[in-house]
Amino acid sequence: MAKTNAGNFFEDFYVGQVIRHATPRTVTTGDASLYTALYGSRFAVQSSDDFAHAVGYDRAPIDDLLTFHIVFGKTVPDISLNAVANLGYAGGRFLAPVYPGDTLSAVSEIIGKKENSNGRTGVVYVRSTGYTADGTEVLDYVRWVMVNKRDANNPPPEPVVPELPSALDPQALGNAVPLLDVAHWDTDLAGSTFRFGDYAKGERIDHVDGMTVEEAEHQIATRLYQNTAKVHFNQHTEGQGRFGRRLIYGGHVISLARALSFNGLGNAFHIAAINGGHHVAPLFSGDTVFAWSEVLDTAELEGRTDVGALRLLLVATKNRPCADHPLKDTDGKYLEDVILDFDYWALMPK
Amino acid sequence: MAKTNAGNFFEDFYVGQVIRHATPRTVTTGDASLYTALYGSRFAVQSSDDFAHAVGYDRAPIDDLLTFHIVFGKTVPDISLNAVANLGYAGGRFLAPVYPGDTLSAVSEIIGKKENSNGRTGVVYVRSTGYTADGTEVLDYVRWVMVNKRDANNPPPEPVVPELPSALDPQALGNAVPLLDVAHWDTDLAGSTFRFGDYAKGERIDHVDGMTVEEAEHQIATRLYQNTAKVHFNQHTEGQGRFGRRLIYGGHVISLARALSFNGLGNAFHIAAINGGHHVAPLFSGDTVFAWSEVLDTAELEGRTDVGALRLLLVATKNRPCADHPLKDTDGKYLEDVILDFDYWALMPK
Amino acid sequence: MAKTNAGNFFEDFYVGQVIRHATPRTVTTGDASLYTALYGSRFAVQSSDDFAHAVGYDRAPIDDLLTFHIVFGKTVPDISLNAVANLGYAGGRFLAPVYPGDTLSAVSEIIGKKENSNGRTGVVYVRSTGYTADGTEVLDYVRWVMVNKRDANNPPPEPVVPELPSALDPQALGNAVPLLDVAHWDTDLAGSTFRFGDYAKGERIDHVDGMTVEEAEHQIATRLYQNTAKVHFNQHTEGQGRFGRRLIYGGHVISLARALSFNGLGNAFHIAAINGGHHVAPLFSGDTVFAWSEVLDTAELEGRTDVGALRLLLVATKNRPCADHPLKDTDGKYLEDVILDFDYWALMPK
Repeated sequence: MAKTNAGNFFEDFYVGQVIRHATPRTVTTGDASLYTALYGSRFAVQSSDDFAHAVGYDRAPIDDLLTFHIVFGKTVPDISLNAVANLGYAGGRFLAPVYPGDTLSAVSEIIGKKENSNGRTGVVYVRSTGYTADGTEVLDYVRWVMVNKRDANNPPPEPVVPELPSALDPQALGNAVPLLDVAHWDTDLAGSTFRFGDYAKGERIDHVDGMTVEEAEHQIATRLYQNTAKVHFNQHTEGQGRFGRRLIYGGHVISLARALSFNGLGNAFHIAAINGGHHVAPLFSGDTVFAWSEVLDTAELEGRTDVGALRLLLVATKNRPCADHPLKDTDGKYLEDVILDFDYWALMPK
Repeated sequence: MAKTNAGNFFEDFYVGQVIRHATPRTVTTGDASLYTALYGSRFAVQSSDDFAHAVGYDRAPIDDLLTFHIVFGKTVPDISLNAVANLGYAGGRFLAPVYPGDTLSAVSEIIGKKENSNGRTGVVYVRSTGYTADGTEVLDYVRWVMVNKRDANNPPPEPVVPELPSALDPQALGNAVPLLDVAHWDTDLAGSTFRFGDYAKGERIDHVDGMTVEEAEHQIATRLYQNTAKVHFNQHTEGQGRFGRRLIYGGHVISLARALSFNGLGNAFHIAAINGGHHVAPLFSGDTVFAWSEVLDTAELEGRTDVGALRLLLVATKNRPCADHPLKDTDGKYLEDVILDFDYWALMPK
Repeated sequence: MAKTNAGNFFEDFYVGQVIRHATPRTVTTGDASLYTALYGSRFAVQSSDDFAHAVGYDRAPIDDLLTFHIVFGKTVPDISLNAVANLGYAGGRFLAPVYPGDTLSAVSEIIGKKENSNGRTGVVYVRSTGYTADGTEVLDYVRWVMVNKRDANNPPPEPVVPELPSALDPQALGNAVPLLDVAHWDTDLAGSTFRFGDYAKGERIDHVDGMTVEEAEHQIATRLYQNTAKVHFNQHTEGQGRFGRRLIYGGHVISLARALSFNGLGNAFHIAAINGGHHVAPLFSGDTVFAWSEVLDTAELEGRTDVGALRLLLVATKNRPCADHPLKDTDGKYLEDVILDFDYWALMPK
């Protein structure tokens, strides 16, 4: 019994706790191929060694979200096996490029916890960091999750709620991108003629296309990330549960929406930071995902004449095209078909 | 609005127009693995570095059709986003082997256009060429597509219809194959004892096996090729359309039929040319694909004692075994279960 | 007609017959990625080049069962195309690590055959061996299959039934594992603190998690192994057959159960031998697989202080959690939801 990982409950976490997660993973071109096959991503830097090399990378780095999903997946057995919900993300930074051949591992620190008023669950705040084998930090981010208590009779802990930034300072961005030779940024090959200066704060872009998701696809993706959350895989149990079906990993939605956003943001080749994100509603197999973006802000990066930063709100819906940019109603409540509200900094060549 | 690619309409094309397509793609062993997993292809040259090296290649090249699909996929956002139908292929030549690590990009030239009598659509003729990063041409082929007009009131252009060969001259074939050391062609490992001399013009071969296609499979394949044609992916829209369901990429059918053809043509390891091809009827998820071949011709290649060429007609059906070699009825109309009519030159060791 | 492989019938096999199988296969990191994506395997040695190197491997070897499936797949066109059932496995040994870049090929020897009393089928016993290109044996195992006779009127052969070991001698194990530097076996990264000495004979472990299987997944897996058995792929034919649906390749079940067993056996990183195995009942798309293990025995390996061997019974069920360790009823009959009974030696660090 004790040899099986039952996951941690709310009581098992303490502020300051550091957890080294299992199963380091050497990322390969095989992972990159599967990522392309699962989402259809078309950003040239991540697709072509030659394009990447021409602009200043060693070769094509893997997609930033593939790094995110692999690091996230490692945290699941320790952090969220008994989670009720993944409530949000904040303060995510991409710190170094990751290339095929790099080995990723992850460490988390518990930075806050607070019991809910119902006495049965609590919220745990976690900062997770992804490393390559030589100790280089490639990603860190905070997420907070609602976790079951082992026993509702256990007394609540002293609440500790970390202060989280609503957005990253753009001056902290860009560490994962070498100084680019933008003269060699070929906009025909990149698929868009629109550069940093062509986007303005407040601009909204409907990404037009839709992508229907199948059970086999999200399961293949989620296993690729070695993410073991039970709700994604076990129809026998989920069929008797809240939704009657398997829940699709929220990160799958982020990657689908990001891939759709190529159509309108083709030069926004790199996610530099995740300011915040919420999975507003669940996605299920058979649903079709659409997406739109709003430019929340634009920023110059000190000392860099090659790239600028766009702060983007990426919204995904299910079974609802986004020509009218759906998000919230007049009361500030999310519209019912909205599934993702994701605020991030992207870099774009000038 | 303008930042999203709305695709080109019939009026946007002009004869002589050259389009450099987006998203160069470094092909990897990950792509080759996925190709095997999607079709179950078993040709030894493409499966084994050691087999390939023993007969004269550097190592295992990728499947010819994987090259075709990747090049084709690049053309979609510019050529066929507003296409009504992909009408046919002709004049396709495989010109150099493609190895994992090579980066593919594509350029197209518009070689003809002609408005249809309905005034709402027209046919565009396109020659597309695939290159590796050093400029080596690896593939070129012509396809013609029916494309919507932006406005039916626009006047028709002067019609230009290119002359297309009904078949490639066999003397132009074989550039993608090094001189083979056929003494090292191990027929046990290749899976067939039948060489070039064992096939005769007029011979028909039922490939016996059937392969059922799932939504997740064709979507994974078509995204792997970064092909963005909407009809393959968006059930929300297609559910309200002509067929009520997603249409499977025609190239997926070609690859399935070619993989099935191993059973009977195990030594036909290389597609040297595509003489012509038509997607006769659509394929949908849940259908089972069968295939048969006819040897249309055989040809010696000047100056080559290692390989000969078979001109093959590859026919695919859905939900209909091919023991009786179904193709057309007595009026010359395709039988209703026929989905592919594909005429190509294959090379085989002597 | 004769050019298509119709497969061998019972009469075509003779004891002492040696068959070199087709389609050598260079294994790549792409195959390893797909294996992870299909099963979610988390053993650190196979996941991380750095972990593997730190303990004594050159780099991460591929999963032992991926080697098994590829070798098995090669035997299908010659051995089991006309098989009625795959009856069992015995005497399987993993003899050398397989790394991405190695090319696998397979040879089989017929070691027994015996006609069934019905006169229409017979059992064929086959020892299959997998090699890398330099002739290194990486795997051998025996399986026996029930094969159709070509003609029930043909007289029965003299029965030859080989003596098969009920289990491998543990002293023959471990050849595929270099001498490990267990001081560098990081149990945080490995995902389990339990080493060889923590497991006792008779101990039972419920692996808790369940995994639902989709048609696209098992087809992608089985084609990846270039396994051509018709029953897995052809719904047109199978829809009219015994079960009305496609049968999932038995090896897919073994890999699912093995991946589930990580939860409880996280340090059992290597399959050293297959003592025996039976596919007790078929698995179909939509079913959820669960698994449990019993420690049948433990063994020290002479001359090795780094690793010990656990003899494990791995049982898989469908649509039935395994908290009560289901296997057989009081009459010794398998319970109806049991699908796999697999007896193997695993190695574990001390």
